[in-house]
Amino acid sequence: MTPLFVIKIGGNVIDDPVGLQTFLTDFAEMKGYKVLVHGGGKIATRLGEKLGIAPHYVQGRRVTDDDTIDLVTMVYGGLVNKQVVAALQAARCPAIGLTGADGNCIPAVKRVIGDVDYGWVGDVDPMQVGAAFLENLISQGLVPVLAPLTHDGQGHILNTNADTIAAAVAIALSGQYDVRLIYCFEKKGVLEDMTRDDSVIALIDRKRQEDLLREGKLTSGILPKIDNAFAAIASGVKEVLIGDARDLLRNITDDVSGTLIVS
Amino acid sequence: MTPLFVIKIGGNVIDDPVGLQTFLTDFAEMKGYKVLVHGGGKIATRLGEKLGIAPHYVQGRRVTDDDTIDLVTMVYGGLVNKQVVAALQAARCPAIGLTGADGNCIPAVKRVIGDVDYGWVGDVDPMQVGAAFLENLISQGLVPVLAPLTHDGQGHILNTNADTIAAAVAIALSGQYDVRLIYCFEKKGVLEDMTRDDSVIALIDRKRQEDLLREGKLTSGILPKIDNAFAAIASGVKEVLIGDARDLLRNITDDVSGTLIVS
Repeated sequence: MTPLFVIKIGGNVIDDPVGLQTFLTDFAEMKGYKVLVHGGGKIATRLGEKLGIAPHYVQGRRVTDDDTIDLVTMVYGGLVNKQVVAALQAARCPAIGLTGADGNCIPAVKRVIGDVDYGWVGDVDPMQVGAAFLENLISQGLVPVLAPLTHDGQGHILNTNADTIAAAVAIALSGQYDVRLIYCFEKKGVLEDMTRDDSVIALIDRKRQEDLLREGKLTSGILPKIDNAFAAIASGVKEVLIGDARDLLRNITDDVSGTLIVS
Repeated sequence: MTPLFVIKIGGNVIDDPVGLQTFLTDFAEMKGYKVLVHGGGKIATRLGEKLGIAPHYVQGRRVTDDDTIDLVTMVYGGLVNKQVVAALQAARCPAIGLTGADGNCIPAVKRVIGDVDYGWVGDVDPMQVGAAFLENLISQGLVPVLAPLTHDGQGHILNTNADTIAAAVAIALSGQYDVRLIYCFEKKGVLEDMTRDDSVIALIDRKRQEDLLREGKLTSGILPKIDNAFAAIASGVKEVLIGDARDLLRNITDDVSGTLIVS
């Protein structure tokens, strides 16, 4: 099958204009089929403060209330997504910005757990992702750029974690492509020793994951990424890489950097 | 050729939640190929006031400064566009929201006239519209929903009048479809007498336009719409209708309402 990269960038890249431009230039130059998923960054928080939209907690959990979903729809779906698309177009990368509502490409279910209503937060089932719609865009040479927003099919936009969207899209496209899922984050990879940036673990399989968990070496920040990674691999994604955006995109063919997750 | 409707709604529809929902239900039920172009509405102005973004004038002309383009990118490209798309999806209309940057579908040129720099405002050449990209979406059964934003191909989003975008897209698609362009606005049509809502002029051709102009019956609000309409017809659009959203969409096959513009 044809290779395809699903690349996720987080707030740390979005919030750094110079780093973002570098990333987008590197991304535009990557050959082959690709999809970009972006997180939100701190712009929404800053804008929310200016607008007097305070974070809202129920039983200690952050919930996405009416004001907050409007805020992130504006910032993630409008400002961030369209600035990224315009920058990619300028770099001759034929980007098309999407939320999960567009073309119904990522339907989701509003999250209610026990008696906690998380507000306008959506959980995604990879089986429901509009793979045919995305494949049609990709086969035309277009590059989907996905904001971390989904919809409930009843007219509401939902807030969904960008790592989760990246994994769901990678899984959904793995029927048609050899998908490599790449999580760019602020470290060079998963670190054996959080105090040493050069302690990148080159490879994590299930056995190694268990060892690292037992030794307490996986921090709360990296655990969901690794869980998403194993879930993606279990559902057909060929491999998952975690590491620094610049290292990963520039060395994408020879695997010399970052942490590779395999089954 | 296959018929296609390009329908433009303005701020008056966007700003009225009940009217917007009614419009979107009617729009979703319309058979055949269709494209929706939406204006901005007053949300951007209200949000701008909260954020302390004051309108900026140079030589009496409103210009789109850095803060304002970010504001309208958020509101038009994010909030309004995605809420419209989610509502259409809920009504089983397979909408896909786009700005002119997405798929490079509406490239534009930053407006500088004489020594007035209008800021991030884009002028559109219908010949540059990405007709093949839009046709591919439409032929898949998708319904493009266009925000009044374009881009300069150098990484900047530009503010562009929604009437102009509707005319440019209608012209660009008229090579492939029999395009009817519909401008929905707050009156039942072009009025012969502004004080009488029942004085709708059923038909305006070039001769009638000259008469109305000479008699001073065309107000500054309607003049650009009529100019856009004649430009569209001169460039291949089959016909242009101006009038009330509900009347036009519900009576779209028999032309009983609104003002029809013909060459």
